[in-house]
Amino acid sequence: MERHDVDVLLVSVGRDLPYLVGYEAMPLERLTMLLVPREGEATLVVPRLEAPRVVPQPDVFTVVPWGETDDPVAMVAGLLPQPAVAAVGDTMWARFLVELLGHWDTARTRYVRATEVMNDLRMVKDAAEIAALRAAGAAVDRIAVRLQRGEIALVGRTEAQVSAELSRQIREEGHERVNFAIVAAGENAASPHHHPGERVIRDGEIVLCDFGGTMAGYCSDITRCVHLGPPPAEVVEAYAVLQQAQAAGVAAGLVGAACEAVDRAARQVIAAAGYGEYFIHRTGHGIGMEEHEDPYMVEGNQTPIAAGHAFSVEPGIYLPGRWGMRLEDIVVATPAGPESMNSADHSLVVL
Amino acid sequence: MERHDVDVLLVSVGRDLPYLVGYEAMPLERLTMLLVPREGEATLVVPRLEAPRVVPQPDVFTVVPWGETDDPVAMVAGLLPQPAVAAVGDTMWARFLVELLGHWDTARTRYVRATEVMNDLRMVKDAAEIAALRAAGAAVDRIAVRLQRGEIALVGRTEAQVSAELSRQIREEGHERVNFAIVAAGENAASPHHHPGERVIRDGEIVLCDFGGTMAGYCSDITRCVHLGPPPAEVVEAYAVLQQAQAAGVAAGLVGAACEAVDRAARQVIAAAGYGEYFIHRTGHGIGMEEHEDPYMVEGNQTPIAAGHAFSVEPGIYLPGRWGMRLEDIVVATPAGPESMNSADHSLVVL
Repeated sequence: MERHDVDVLLVSVGRDLPYLVGYEAMPLERLTMLLVPREGEATLVVPRLEAPRVVPQPDVFTVVPWGETDDPVAMVAGLLPQPAVAAVGDTMWARFLVELLGHWDTARTRYVRATEVMNDLRMVKDAAEIAALRAAGAAVDRIAVRLQRGEIALVGRTEAQVSAELSRQIREEGHERVNFAIVAAGENAASPHHHPGERVIRDGEIVLCDFGGTMAGYCSDITRCVHLGPPPAEVVEAYAVLQQAQAAGVAAGLVGAACEAVDRAARQVIAAAGYGEYFIHRTGHGIGMEEHEDPYMVEGNQTPIAAGHAFSVEPGIYLPGRWGMRLEDIVVATPAGPESMNSADHSLVVL
Repeated sequence: MERHDVDVLLVSVGRDLPYLVGYEAMPLERLTMLLVPREGEATLVVPRLEAPRVVPQPDVFTVVPWGETDDPVAMVAGLLPQPAVAAVGDTMWARFLVELLGHWDTARTRYVRATEVMNDLRMVKDAAEIAALRAAGAAVDRIAVRLQRGEIALVGRTEAQVSAELSRQIREEGHERVNFAIVAAGENAASPHHHPGERVIRDGEIVLCDFGGTMAGYCSDITRCVHLGPPPAEVVEAYAVLQQAQAAGVAAGLVGAACEAVDRAARQVIAAAGYGEYFIHRTGHGIGMEEHEDPYMVEGNQTPIAAGHAFSVEPGIYLPGRWGMRLEDIVVATPAGPESMNSADHSLVVL
């Protein structure tokens, strides 16, 4: 906080709070907020009826419960001298910041994102965090392998049905939460964030599955495509490019390299093969307690990769109205080179 | 917006967006924002790779997609003249408001909550919305009835296992999303927002189940308690008070009455019986597309109840370290009086 000239850190709903103190705020209208001044004691402001959920840690924070007829934002403003710079948690509900703006003289406080302070801590995963990412990765790998073996029925089912089955397996493999289970068939695979629907999966098409959850607090995320019946030559050719691009992106994830180098490495392969205009998103995102977090593998991000950075490498090729494909692993940068959390077959398995 | 002197409405993640335009923003770091100026055209700023999910409605909004290397908040600021009053969606991520504060001269814009504009619309449910609440209520009623018939095993299972079974049934009954499935046994029932854990449920204790989900976009929410074996006299006595308090709260939900009258009606019964200090939360919350929304049934809320207001009536009695109990229905205010969305047995069923 001193390095970033931040006077107080205000975190609420989201992962910063459990990262710092092991407590998770309920994403509801009753405010929970941890106040961390640059010097002095941290305070956890919490609804009185949720206070029994807090495990007291008197050497870490003081608990200040508020009652049903109190104004918790006024309490927060009253607990602190007005800061010159307040760092606000990314996923705090905007309503609480709106209310805070009404309590503090707007000319005297500058607001910045809490990531300025938190990123230095959260981006670098320690050994226990990497072990958690590895375990979550292995869990979704097992599902991907079943998909590739044909043990998850596809033809004749709707995308939504397959998505529900993937979700069930994510839970059964030990995740406490399903974050997403995208199933996109044929032309739907050309929409990277397709919402699985009533579209029935047919023989002769590609099926893209991108799924993950949260296991012991850390996220998994994997994408594999299978082809139902022999793929046409153009799909085979494009997939070979995709696989090479993804491997190049992983290989570029070296300690000291810029994050954008991962994006460039993957993009170069796809562009050189003539598919550049069909790769319409960044190459990857950081991952940890959140499914998407810093650092992002995107052009313009010159943050140097450090040992312990964990991120996805997931290039794609999308032909609108026809088909799409994406290939994704989670990678952790280590002094010995990039370590992949996923090992399920990287080829376009034909079923 | 004219009545509330709001120049622009900015909504993002949350229910205001689907309520207004039928599109739901993904709760991720890529900004989706609907800009509604007091006069002129609405604009939906959306990540380019999510744009295929948007069903175009050219007479409702213009779509402005942004690419992976664009700054979407700068785009938002550039699309509008700086407003004197901006109304911000409650659940928008604070990071986007923090970024917006950096683009607009802070002295020239006042920020207010979007609820100032949206509540007049969203609090009053129309016939289709009430039908959706009724259907969702009937779905969780069927689960409550199975609980009360002893068809959901309790003794010897952990709270977490029973919670998982309730969650499964919530989905099977037609909800697209489980919002919560609190299962709290014995002394854990004294914590109103208890997180179901590894505590094994035993004979001779009370089990509180509070569960709900989202079905066709609208929320269910019900609480019933069962007692395993004959309850002690003090539990029987307290429950009789609770049941009477809940009925009094429902009966007070009259068009034209203040929201706080519902809270007072329930609280009065509990206080008169000597349990006042053990009823530690407000009596209820509004419900609709969100599990908790305005209007809140709490002391100090003098908003008059209107026909079409939907809210929970859920008093509780909590004896720390010993036991707790809560009884909850969803109620819709109608000109003919309060209509309950739940009809499962209101008594303390003994199993």
